Amino acid sequence: MKCFLKYPKYCDFPIENLPYGVFTTPQKPTPRIGVAIADLILDLHEIAHLFTGPELRNHQIVFMEHTLNSLMALSPQAWKEARETIQSLLSEDNTILQNDVDLRKRAFVSQSEATMHLPARIGDYTDFYSSIHHATNVGIMFRSRENALMPNWKHLPVGYHGRASSVVISGTSIHRPYGQTLVMDGTDPVFGPCKLMDFELEMAFFVGGSNKLGEPIKMENAEDRIFGFVIMNDWSARDIQKWEYVPLGPFLAKNLGTSISPWVVTTLALEPFKTDNFPQDPKPLPYLRHTDKFNFDINLQVDLTPKGGNVSTTVCRSNYKYLYWTPKQQLVHHTITGCNLNPGDLMGSGTISGETSDSFGSMLELSWKGTKPVSLLDGSQRKFLQDGDTVTIKAVCEGHNFNIGFGTCVGTLLPAKDLTW
Amino acid sequence: MKCFLKYPKYCDFPIENLPYGVFTTPQKPTPRIGVAIADLILDLHEIAHLFTGPELRNHQIVFMEHTLNSLMALSPQAWKEARETIQSLLSEDNTILQNDVDLRKRAFVSQSEATMHLPARIGDYTDFYSSIHHATNVGIMFRSRENALMPNWKHLPVGYHGRASSVVISGTSIHRPYGQTLVMDGTDPVFGPCKLMDFELEMAFFVGGSNKLGEPIKMENAEDRIFGFVIMNDWSARDIQKWEYVPLGPFLAKNLGTSISPWVVTTLALEPFKTDNFPQDPKPLPYLRHTDKFNFDINLQVDLTPKGGNVSTTVCRSNYKYLYWTPKQQLVHHTITGCNLNPGDLMGSGTISGETSDSFGSMLELSWKGTKPVSLLDGSQRKFLQDGDTVTIKAVCEGHNFNIGFGTCVGTLLPAKDLTW
Repeated sequence: MKCFLKYPKYCDFPIENLPYGVFTTPQKPTPRIGVAIADLILDLHEIAHLFTGPELRNHQIVFMEHTLNSLMALSPQAWKEARETIQSLLSEDNTILQNDVDLRKRAFVSQSEATMHLPARIGDYTDFYSSIHHATNVGIMFRSRENALMPNWKHLPVGYHGRASSVVISGTSIHRPYGQTLVMDGTDPVFGPCKLMDFELEMAFFVGGSNKLGEPIKMENAEDRIFGFVIMNDWSARDIQKWEYVPLGPFLAKNLGTSISPWVVTTLALEPFKTDNFPQDPKPLPYLRHTDKFNFDINLQVDLTPKGGNVSTTVCRSNYKYLYWTPKQQLVHHTITGCNLNPGDLMGSGTISGETSDSFGSMLELSWKGTKPVSLLDGSQRKFLQDGDTVTIKAVCEGHNFNIGFGTCVGTLLPAKDLTW
Repeated sequence: MKCFLKYPKYCDFPIENLPYGVFTTPQKPTPRIGVAIADLILDLHEIAHLFTGPELRNHQIVFMEHTLNSLMALSPQAWKEARETIQSLLSEDNTILQNDVDLRKRAFVSQSEATMHLPARIGDYTDFYSSIHHATNVGIMFRSRENALMPNWKHLPVGYHGRASSVVISGTSIHRPYGQTLVMDGTDPVFGPCKLMDFELEMAFFVGGSNKLGEPIKMENAEDRIFGFVIMNDWSARDIQKWEYVPLGPFLAKNLGTSISPWVVTTLALEPFKTDNFPQDPKPLPYLRHTDKFNFDINLQVDLTPKGGNVSTTVCRSNYKYLYWTPKQQLVHHTITGCNLNPGDLMGSGTISGETSDSFGSMLELSWKGTKPVSLLDGSQRKFLQDGDTVTIKAVCEGHNFNIGFGTCVGTLLPAKDLTW
């Protein structure tokens, strides 16, 4: 498969990738759906009429909408046909788009000219806690090595409902939040700006299709319900979290903003990068079992760039494959009591930490609760994030004749606002 | 203020109430907005053109929509004008609607002919834990009398993000869910139907207006952001909850369905039933303080009706006023780290238990963790809910020359479905 556009062999967005996103341009400020190809965007609104296969010819409207929800609501067969159609239209052998100068002019937009938006209306957002290394690290820090994992952790993918409204697109700055924290046990809490701001290296998937309330999704149908993946930074206010989270879980420490990357890489595109599932012992209950591979070899990297500095430091290199629970297990578990999922629902992986200390996915772990400062290349050190720090997460699948890249998820931590009250 | 319609003095929906809801009829299956008056619904779509005051004349469209979100997005001044306009149109002295036979015929629908729907698209749903008696009861049961309340409980309104998609309208049946439970400590979990199904007597408010991410709502503006209230039953699978909830809080034990009553009683209608706030000691941090009354005297009652039986037993009589934290404190706290709220967001109170054992708002408390069976009038007993049990929650403000009723929130627990896998 060769694209009629020229691009570097190992770019993020070759013809094998084709992630979906929602964008605007200064000339056309109405959000529309596009697919990333090299450093361009193929505007699907402009070529909606070319989706003439049996699954899509009566659903061309989904490519003219302002979000991906309607496309996500279609069947996996339709998603496959959409991918094949776009690949065909972009391939050297196909002249329909290639030779139509007018259409090409309208249909291709430079990524550098576009503003990206949230790819979907996120009805509900759930965050899991599926990295065994992360859960173990946190457990050791706050309990002990012996009791690091809670008794339920290896029996079910622990997760919680997050705040959908505060999910933002990469590039959105986050203000250091105010909140209650406990300076010392036994004293009263104090109010002020968070002192322990952190990032969390995560990935998340978008749900496709829907199930009715009271109708769990079976494991055999789970893959059909996972549309695609993005990078996620689950900004966390550690000191606020520590004080508030008993007994109902994280709340305000997380709803100050959660950043996702703009390009949704489809499960179809990730197929060549499937890898062995993480070994599970004990074997999970039957409803959570699957033997097919549904884990992914995705290299992850977190860079930290202090304010104004041009010097970025890679503080973490991790991989999606370190997750103990697969996305299929997360999805099936989520619905086992009957919860209804909708197209556009977002499910985060939880912080993805590897085994070694340079693969930990949060400052909490990298600085081991603030006891081991992390040295940056500009000579400064970090225990947690400082005002002006920019966190950039990259994700890319490598190891074939092409890469499947996710682009970046970027966000800057701004100082706390003056509340003037 | 006298209505030109005749109704019993102490009905739920007098002219002083005017709660909003969304309904359909067999003749007109498109959802539309109405106001309950006595046993009728005033169809606001039909009289949208009569909202001619300065706040609404350019926003009549909000009364023609399928949900209340756009009305909720308007200002408190607009809500007040809407209420005054409807009261005027329904009053004896006003002939516009009264004498227009044609319009009256179109504008009034019998409640018995209507099907009610969710009043709003709920973007996000949050549940608090604001009853001190409930939190204390649960604390005693699962910890000890000395450590009943967690250290944070009196310093902030503890809450968590719930699942918006599984909020359903009163009348929707709920299937007993499947899930993982731990039969005995130290053993492996088992999979099967929940054995400890429960209701939770709650109320909830709908948010009006919106704030941007990163911009907390100040206490002085909080009242303007609380559109109105409904009854809520937060169905809970206690055995599933107990096993899953550490450390990130309740998840699947709650997302099997949360029922709300269809009529949104506005904050304006509740004004005469404002009562003293629950005494707070210690004094909360300044951002959570308010001295004006924002607590409500709302009588609550839970009836349990076994399958097929015509015999209902009132198992709980409680009151909204027992809540320790006010809705204004809940709302302000929710945004203090910058969380953005949207019109139509729903915020639950948490289980509302009073001080005495007949005012506890859940079977967990009424049967004291299953140790004290509750006797029903049909001669049977309950520790938790049985298949076929119908739970009916009523809420009504009394003590003036009129009542402000909320109607009922009803749901039946159906047997677990055959999963056939």
